[in-house]
Amino acid sequence: MSFFKILKKSKKSAARLGILKTSHGLIHTPAFLPCATQATVKSLIPEEIKEIGFEGVLCNTYHLYLRPGEKIIKKLGGLHKFMNWPGPIATDSGGFQVFSLGFGLEQRVGKVLKEKDENNLEQEKIKGQQAKLAQIDQNGVSFTSHLDGSIHRFTPEKSIRIQEDLGADIIFAFDECTSPLASYGYTKKAMLRTHLWAKRCLRVKEKKGQLLFGIVQGGPFKDLRKESARFIGSLPFEGIGIGGSFGQEEMKKTLDWIRPYLPENKPRHLLGIGYLKDLREAIKRGMDLFDCVYPTRLARHGNFLTNKGEMNIFKAVYRLDKTPIMKNCACYTCQNFSRAYLHHLFKAGEILGSRLATFHNLWLMRQFIEEIKQAIKDNKF
Amino acid sequence: MSFFKILKKSKKSAARLGILKTSHGLIHTPAFLPCATQATVKSLIPEEIKEIGFEGVLCNTYHLYLRPGEKIIKKLGGLHKFMNWPGPIATDSGGFQVFSLGFGLEQRVGKVLKEKDENNLEQEKIKGQQAKLAQIDQNGVSFTSHLDGSIHRFTPEKSIRIQEDLGADIIFAFDECTSPLASYGYTKKAMLRTHLWAKRCLRVKEKKGQLLFGIVQGGPFKDLRKESARFIGSLPFEGIGIGGSFGQEEMKKTLDWIRPYLPENKPRHLLGIGYLKDLREAIKRGMDLFDCVYPTRLARHGNFLTNKGEMNIFKAVYRLDKTPIMKNCACYTCQNFSRAYLHHLFKAGEILGSRLATFHNLWLMRQFIEEIKQAIKDNKF
Repeated sequence: MSFFKILKKSKKSAARLGILKTSHGLIHTPAFLPCATQATVKSLIPEEIKEIGFEGVLCNTYHLYLRPGEKIIKKLGGLHKFMNWPGPIATDSGGFQVFSLGFGLEQRVGKVLKEKDENNLEQEKIKGQQAKLAQIDQNGVSFTSHLDGSIHRFTPEKSIRIQEDLGADIIFAFDECTSPLASYGYTKKAMLRTHLWAKRCLRVKEKKGQLLFGIVQGGPFKDLRKESARFIGSLPFEGIGIGGSFGQEEMKKTLDWIRPYLPENKPRHLLGIGYLKDLREAIKRGMDLFDCVYPTRLARHGNFLTNKGEMNIFKAVYRLDKTPIMKNCACYTCQNFSRAYLHHLFKAGEILGSRLATFHNLWLMRQFIEEIKQAIKDNKF
Repeated sequence: MSFFKILKKSKKSAARLGILKTSHGLIHTPAFLPCATQATVKSLIPEEIKEIGFEGVLCNTYHLYLRPGEKIIKKLGGLHKFMNWPGPIATDSGGFQVFSLGFGLEQRVGKVLKEKDENNLEQEKIKGQQAKLAQIDQNGVSFTSHLDGSIHRFTPEKSIRIQEDLGADIIFAFDECTSPLASYGYTKKAMLRTHLWAKRCLRVKEKKGQLLFGIVQGGPFKDLRKESARFIGSLPFEGIGIGGSFGQEEMKKTLDWIRPYLPENKPRHLLGIGYLKDLREAIKRGMDLFDCVYPTRLARHGNFLTNKGEMNIFKAVYRLDKTPIMKNCACYTCQNFSRAYLHHLFKAGEILGSRLATFHNLWLMRQFIEEIKQAIKDNKF
C-alpha cells in the first residue's frame, strides 16, 4: 500500500517506524495525535501544535456533528479550513461517545462526577437522569444530545457521511465499544454487529482522499479479539483501529492476542490510549498511531507531566519554588516560568495556566515519543 | 524632569506626545497599559503583548496582596521576574478595589451580578451579604478579603510598602475613590483625606526606581476637582493620576476643569478609562496614560472591538460567516480565523475563543492609539 511505508522494524520487539501519507501531509509513526475534540486543541493555536512537533490531530465526530454540525463545517470548506489546521486530521466514528452516554453509564456509578469532562459531557446531569441515553439495534444507535436533549440517530452510513462532510484525512468505521463489564454473550453480539457495520461502512464510503480504518473490538475475551482482528484485518480497510476500554495489563494482553492477525502493511491506531507507560508498551507491540485526551485534560487540572510522573501544581510546596516544572525541558513554559508562577495562575483560576500546562504536557509527550523513535532507529527498543 | 519628555504638543488640542522613562524601559505616550490584574494579561503570554506593541502593563495591588501575597512576589524576585514581563509595570494603590467592595456597593443594586468580574470579585456573594465590607477612618481602610473573608487593613503606608515589594515601575498613592452618588459633603471629606494620605505616601516611600503618582479626586464637583488638582499638582509626585468614576460627559468636563492646575511636565494617568471614544477625548485633553479592563473583559464575553463598534460573536448570523472579524485587520486572529470559527469556539465554551478575542481587541486598541499618535504628529488631531 503506497500510502503507508514501514521504514524500519525493531529487532527486539514488534515496534516499527513508518510514514503514513495522507491528503494533507505525512505522519511519521509511531505518532500521537493530540485531541482537538471540538476543532481546537484546547487553548492552543495551530502554530503551537506544529511548534511542538505534532503532525496531525484528532477531532471528535460526535461533538462536531452536534455543534456546529457537519453541514456547516462542509459549507465552510471542511475541517482543515474551519480550524485553520493544514496538516493531517483524523476523526473518530462517533461510536465511543454515543455509547459512553448510554451503555457505559452503569460503570460510572461510584465515580465522582463533579465536572465536565474533556468532551464537555455534562455528567452530573446524565447521572441524575439515570435513563439510558443510547438505544442500540442492528441498524444503528439512537441517542439524545447532551447539549439540548434532542434525539439523534447514527448508523454506519450516517457516520461515514458525517465524516465525509467533515473531511478528515483518516476516518473510522462505526463500531460499538462495549463496557469491559459486559458479559461474553453481549460482547460477542456487539462484536458481530461491529463487523456487519464495518462492511456497511466500506460499502457506503464514496469520497476519495480519506483513509478508512476498521475497528477491532471483542472486549476482554481472547477468542473474540482474535476473531475480530482476523475479520477486520481481512477487509479492504486502509488501516486498523483497536477499540475498547482497558487497563494496562489487559491492553498488553489484547495487543499480544491480536498481533498475528493484523496485516503487517497497514497502519494501526490504538484508540484513546495516552498514558506514557501504555504508549511504550503499545509501540513495542506494533502500534503506530495514538490519540488521547490525557495530556491536555491533565493540564487543565493543573497536572504537569514530568519524567518523574505527574506533578500537581496546586500543592502549597510550589508556592515559592523558583524552578521550572522540569529543569531540562526546552518547552516555552519551562523556559519562561517558575513553578511558583504556575501555582499562582492555577490558584487564581487564570486560563493562562491551562494554556502553559497544555503546551508543556504535549511537548513532553512529543519528546517521549521521539525518544522511542530514536531508540527504534538505534535498535535499542 | 528627566524621566518624562514631551516630544510634541498638538496645535489643535491639549494632546501631546511624550516619552516616559522607567526602570524597565520606555513608554511612548499616549499609551494604554493592558490590565494584568493577577500578574497575567488574561490568556496571553508576554511575547504576545510585545507583538501587539504594548510597552507596559498594569497589575492590581489589591489582588496580588491577597494572592499570592506581595511578600511571596518579593521573594521570587519581584513582579517583572514573577510574570516574566521585562518591560514597564504599573501597580494601582489598591484603593479602588478596596472601596468597590465596600462603599461602592449601594450603586450596584439593580445591576445584574451574575458572574465574576475582571477582578474575580465574587459579586453575588457580596450582594448576598449586604454588609459593608470596607470601613474607612482617617488612618486607612479595613476590609474583608473576597477570597476567604479574612480581615485586612490598608493604610497609605501599607499600600506603598506593598507596592515597593511588588516592585512595579509606576506606583500610585493610596486614595479614596468615592461614588458619583456621594454627597458634596462626603466627597469633600474623602478628598481631603486623600490629600492627607498623598502626603503620607510621599513621606513613607523609600525604594528608588519607582515613579510615584498622586491621585486627583473630587467627584463630580467642579470646585473640589480644581482644589484636588491644584493640591496634588503642587506635591513632588513624579506623575498625576486622575481617579473617579464617570460617564463620558462628566469625564470631559472634569478633565477640562483640572487641566489648568496639572503640571505640564508630569505624565498624567487617567485611571480605569478604556472606551475608544473616551480615550480619544481624554488624549485631546492632555492625558498620557490609560489602563482599563474593557478590551480584555469584553473579549472573554465574545465581544470583538471593530472600527464600527462592538461585535458580539455569539449571534447566529455569524454561524456561516467565512470572513474575519475585520477585513483590514492585520492581527493574528483576523489573519487566520473566520467569524464562523470564532462563533463556534464561543458557543462551545472553548478558551481559545477568549484568547483569540483578547488578542484582537488589544491589537485594535493599540492600532487606535497609534493612529491618534500619528495624527498628533501630523498636526491633524
